[in-house]
Amino acid sequence: MAASRTTSTDLYFDFLCPFAWRGVELAHVLRREQGLSFHLRHFSLVQGNHPTNPDRRAPTRWSHEQGAGEGSPSQQASLRAFLAAQAAARQGEETAWAFTPVLLRARHERGGELDGETIRASGGEAGLDLTRFEADLADDAALRTALADDLREAAALKVFGTPTFVLPHGRAAYLRFSRLIREGAEAQALWGVYGEVLHSGAGIETIKRPR
Amino acid sequence: MAASRTTSTDLYFDFLCPFAWRGVELAHVLRREQGLSFHLRHFSLVQGNHPTNPDRRAPTRWSHEQGAGEGSPSQQASLRAFLAAQAAARQGEETAWAFTPVLLRARHERGGELDGETIRASGGEAGLDLTRFEADLADDAALRTALADDLREAAALKVFGTPTFVLPHGRAAYLRFSRLIREGAEAQALWGVYGEVLHSGAGIETIKRPR
Repeated sequence: MAASRTTSTDLYFDFLCPFAWRGVELAHVLRREQGLSFHLRHFSLVQGNHPTNPDRRAPTRWSHEQGAGEGSPSQQASLRAFLAAQAAARQGEETAWAFTPVLLRARHERGGELDGETIRASGGEAGLDLTRFEADLADDAALRTALADDLREAAALKVFGTPTFVLPHGRAAYLRFSRLIREGAEAQALWGVYGEVLHSGAGIETIKRPR
Repeated sequence: MAASRTTSTDLYFDFLCPFAWRGVELAHVLRREQGLSFHLRHFSLVQGNHPTNPDRRAPTRWSHEQGAGEGSPSQQASLRAFLAAQAAARQGEETAWAFTPVLLRARHERGGELDGETIRASGGEAGLDLTRFEADLADDAALRTALADDLREAAALKVFGTPTFVLPHGRAAYLRFSRLIREGAEAQALWGVYGEVLHSGAGIETIKRPR
């Protein structure tokens, strides 16, 4: 993935997070309307917020090491969705980009659970080769290894929330916004403001509304 | 102060905070170069972060109620500076605007303590009527009442950090940036980006770099 680093924006997200869903929809529109390139990456909010992991850069409790029945229901759902997305990504970047928004909508728009049934239905809706998807889903150890790469890079970057975008030359920030964007001009306007903040000569570190 | 609310931006700050210092310098430049209007307001970080005050909107431990010898050294220094600024403000808004940046620079640029000596030297440097300043400094109860107004309004707005700007018509956000700005074009660029974020149709709530 290193080669994409200079031309593509990394988008760290967790399937649990409604703001990450909005971030993925934003990127989805920007890919379609502006031809921008985004690479989907996984960051675990449960891992990031876990009390045993006070140092964001050096977690001791990694999500990809959790057993299938271990941890909270959220932790299990998040891991299940991450591994499914890693399986979908084996069919290519475009397939990952077909699958991920569909699964996020199933969760956050329709209130579904991140369980095996929703995952398989999302695979079908996204047009995956379902025979291959099943075989890849069964390759648990390899999926966890792929997930570990994302989690390790997120830790190195000190990602703390989702969505976090990492621009081609390394500038990065968490971006939380409330409106669901599905239209090109709105997506472009938001992406433009976000880029201005990250490139501001003032060294803007945080803009946060009280809530 | 209610009348100013529709034309003036409220700037909540604490003398303890180096980022609030940068925020006040930003407003100082924007007043001078752009003729923009900012009203200096006080928010106590010690109060806001105190473990007995988990609900930002309903603190039980107010800074203006702390005795002169009570609390941590930071708490005492912050309160001393706030009361001095309230005393300076009795000589008018322009005098408050002369005094505040001078005291912030004494603390954050020259590493001085927020003690009586620094406060009086800053009053002199800012051109205050020093006889009147001494008399106003002695009017402790009234200064605390004035401070309480700021602290209560900050709590109602859920201010959590400094600097926080509250634009005319109520949009508000904490703004943390690393560069000290003393030049008009840079100030205008930063203020422009900040305004775009607050007025974005996407409902931007947070942009925060990992650190």
